[in-house]
Amino acid sequence: MLSDSFTIENETILLFDIKPGDPFLGYRGKICSILRLESNMEAKRNVYLKMKTLEEAHQIIDEAFAVSGVLAIETVPVPEAVGRVLAQPIQAKISSPHFNAAAMDGLAVKAEVTFGASETAPKTLNVGRDVFYVNTGHVMPADTDAVIIIEHVLVLDDNRIEIDKPVFPWQNVRKVGEDIVATELLFPRNHLITSYCVGALLTGGVFEVPVKKKPKILIIPTGSELVDWRSFSSNNFKPGQVLETNSFVLGSLIENCGGAYSRHHMLMDDSAKIKQVVQDAVKEDYQMILILGGSSAGSEDFAKRVILDLGQVFVHGVTIMPGKPVVIGALAETPVFGIPGYPVSAIIAFEQFVRPLIHKMLGQPDDTGQTIQVEPTRKIASKLGVEEFVRVKLGQVGERIVATPLPRGAGSITSITEADGILRIPTHIEGINEREMVPAQLLRPLTSILRTIVIVGSHDNTLDVLADQIKAKHSRLTLSSSHVGSMGGGDGN
Amino acid sequence: MLSDSFTIENETILLFDIKPGDPFLGYRGKICSILRLESNMEAKRNVYLKMKTLEEAHQIIDEAFAVSGVLAIETVPVPEAVGRVLAQPIQAKISSPHFNAAAMDGLAVKAEVTFGASETAPKTLNVGRDVFYVNTGHVMPADTDAVIIIEHVLVLDDNRIEIDKPVFPWQNVRKVGEDIVATELLFPRNHLITSYCVGALLTGGVFEVPVKKKPKILIIPTGSELVDWRSFSSNNFKPGQVLETNSFVLGSLIENCGGAYSRHHMLMDDSAKIKQVVQDAVKEDYQMILILGGSSAGSEDFAKRVILDLGQVFVHGVTIMPGKPVVIGALAETPVFGIPGYPVSAIIAFEQFVRPLIHKMLGQPDDTGQTIQVEPTRKIASKLGVEEFVRVKLGQVGERIVATPLPRGAGSITSITEADGILRIPTHIEGINEREMVPAQLLRPLTSILRTIVIVGSHDNTLDVLADQIKAKHSRLTLSSSHVGSMGGGDGN
Repeated sequence: MLSDSFTIENETILLFDIKPGDPFLGYRGKICSILRLESNMEAKRNVYLKMKTLEEAHQIIDEAFAVSGVLAIETVPVPEAVGRVLAQPIQAKISSPHFNAAAMDGLAVKAEVTFGASETAPKTLNVGRDVFYVNTGHVMPADTDAVIIIEHVLVLDDNRIEIDKPVFPWQNVRKVGEDIVATELLFPRNHLITSYCVGALLTGGVFEVPVKKKPKILIIPTGSELVDWRSFSSNNFKPGQVLETNSFVLGSLIENCGGAYSRHHMLMDDSAKIKQVVQDAVKEDYQMILILGGSSAGSEDFAKRVILDLGQVFVHGVTIMPGKPVVIGALAETPVFGIPGYPVSAIIAFEQFVRPLIHKMLGQPDDTGQTIQVEPTRKIASKLGVEEFVRVKLGQVGERIVATPLPRGAGSITSITEADGILRIPTHIEGINEREMVPAQLLRPLTSILRTIVIVGSHDNTLDVLADQIKAKHSRLTLSSSHVGSMGGGDGN
Repeated sequence: MLSDSFTIENETILLFDIKPGDPFLGYRGKICSILRLESNMEAKRNVYLKMKTLEEAHQIIDEAFAVSGVLAIETVPVPEAVGRVLAQPIQAKISSPHFNAAAMDGLAVKAEVTFGASETAPKTLNVGRDVFYVNTGHVMPADTDAVIIIEHVLVLDDNRIEIDKPVFPWQNVRKVGEDIVATELLFPRNHLITSYCVGALLTGGVFEVPVKKKPKILIIPTGSELVDWRSFSSNNFKPGQVLETNSFVLGSLIENCGGAYSRHHMLMDDSAKIKQVVQDAVKEDYQMILILGGSSAGSEDFAKRVILDLGQVFVHGVTIMPGKPVVIGALAETPVFGIPGYPVSAIIAFEQFVRPLIHKMLGQPDDTGQTIQVEPTRKIASKLGVEEFVRVKLGQVGERIVATPLPRGAGSITSITEADGILRIPTHIEGINEREMVPAQLLRPLTSILRTIVIVGSHDNTLDVLADQIKAKHSRLTLSSSHVGSMGGGDGN
């Protein structure tokens, strides 16, 4: 059954001659990827791809995909533009204020009239001739350039006031253009519009803005084992079946970073069908395609094969854990990703490769949130040669923030919903020692983490009840219990 | 015209007898609030309220408003529940996995069969009798409890494999309930649903969740000087007129913190009309009402008067700057706020008083984001007796983060769109010295601030062009120039 063997970059490649549908290739040695071949003919094209490091994969993505001009432009009213990205620089059309305005309640005056006033030599001024009552925001009367604030005035009678200190020219006046000058740049292109920006744009007379269209991403969930929650029946949920959840999680993550998504209905492990769907999708207006493959039944290989048949594969396998079996390729100009099926692998592959590309299309930095220094509560072992993303619970002990690893595998979605942060153990390190300071990327605000009571141990229903009661009564406090009893199961893919 | 005087809490109160429409009350002395009275009769009820500190105002809000049960419950499908808050604790309905599953590609085996295998004494096992090919996610065959991963197997022929080390029971197996056990608490009530949570809920067989209805807030913009941007015409924009922008800014901020809003059409400075609108609104299903008053034409007083006539006023005036003239009251059980008209005052009053109350209704902490230590580039003066919110630009100089104050007033919306952070100068401090370390609350991620080139000086159009070019070509870099030429205008309200 061994049909060929050759060496690339010091690694031995074995090609087997097997029939489509054969469940496995046995192998041994330095090979780190199995090729599941569908026919002898296709085998000729199925080149072996060496795994890439995270940095290499990022660089390949940076070089492979043009992002400038990928997104079309649409015009939206300013109040609806929050969270969108400016496609062009925006200049103010009107000044603010567009007239000299009183900045305080008081009396408008020509400043020089007040010069010399002091406590020992107060000045009396004539209302309607020297000074004029104005409220904040009022137009300054002709020939006035300052406002004496009302608290500094002694009203003598209806026609006369007294002051005991002078004002300087333009004191308590908002001059034309003080906030915004017509023609000035309000925001450059690629600026992310915030709630505050709405105020500046409208004030500057800009009522609609050209923004980048949201990158539209097609999500194709694949896997014969998958069940749609909308047709779920507990009586009919068979061993081996799995609820399809990744498309909804990634769809929501896409929306969070400024994209939009469509979910294709689920496909069986049928490479011809998957290929057809991808081929059709490329003709439509999608800026990216995600093929969600299950870890089971060789669906990653479907993704790779489909992309290879229709376009190019740049990366198959990255030395990260979870997230390793990701496929990165392109059909014509459209980026296509094969996303691993384990829920945490899918999330990490998305956050490492897909989100940065969405952000790049939108001209946004891919900020990952706050990173703080933490101390592991126990030694965390890690494989040499892979960069590990360890989900941890954090808690404050004295001045230190301690990190307790959540030891479960990439199949455990709760290992990420329960996590406060993610430690990254670099490729060249075998693990982190207890009390060795390491950086952790936060998944929740630090203030919230510091208000959390962390209990790590076996699962206990009474803690669940307590957690709920605390959350019901103290919005600022959280009780978090992690059941870490089972350590054996789940792999790191 | 002085009709009465009396003393409350060591402050002298002067009541004047004036006609409605009289523009001003002149006064002098220790009074810090002007009463703009509409008639002698109403004057009797217009009690003087001493300004509150920020802490006092927060405490009053905490005590005045019941928040438990204010929000009704609605049921939404899980994929649409991201950003919503659980109204009840949620327990898993099914376990995950709901069968013992292979966690790796390989051969399922009863672990004890492998005991004793070593490099010097490998074991040969029979495919179909001792061991069974399984893919990740497959159901474990009967009488097996471990998976030998494919990389550790030497395939001898179609029927026999050889191993040189044993596996332990449940190695590479995901046991029933390893991730989620049916009946376990997935999330307590008041949990904010994230994208990740969608995965855990669907996996646990929970397809729809009871969430708190979004607090619905009515925004009533008032002010005879206001112009709606939808009917704006530059030919017809008169001195004294101002574009109404606050309702859109606050509306967006409401949505950001989990609320929903309706915008009433703009009202003139007509207290009878404003009163009618507020009275009608309380009968409808609003959880909060914001009366946006202009600083001009006494509209804050309209807000106070309207609330006082219909219900209670707890606070009028808080010793903060900007944001000072806020009114906090209630009609029946409904919180009603009078929000100052200067754009920055409106934002700070919202973020200090309205947002925490929305968060409290939703059972969420009012986290304000990351705070870091910064050094002012120059002395920042501040009034004793008020807590100042100074908008600053931040930049890295060596190891230090330096803060340059944006010196413009509360009328300047760009002072907050350009700001990277906000310094708070406490009530009892007259200012901060150059190079004195002070905390700053960040308005942008620190990583983004560190990548910004800050130029502070007079306004220069070439810098605008440069800023746009940088943003067009480097998504991670920002050029930020602040024109801080005019220092005289704008007050701190």
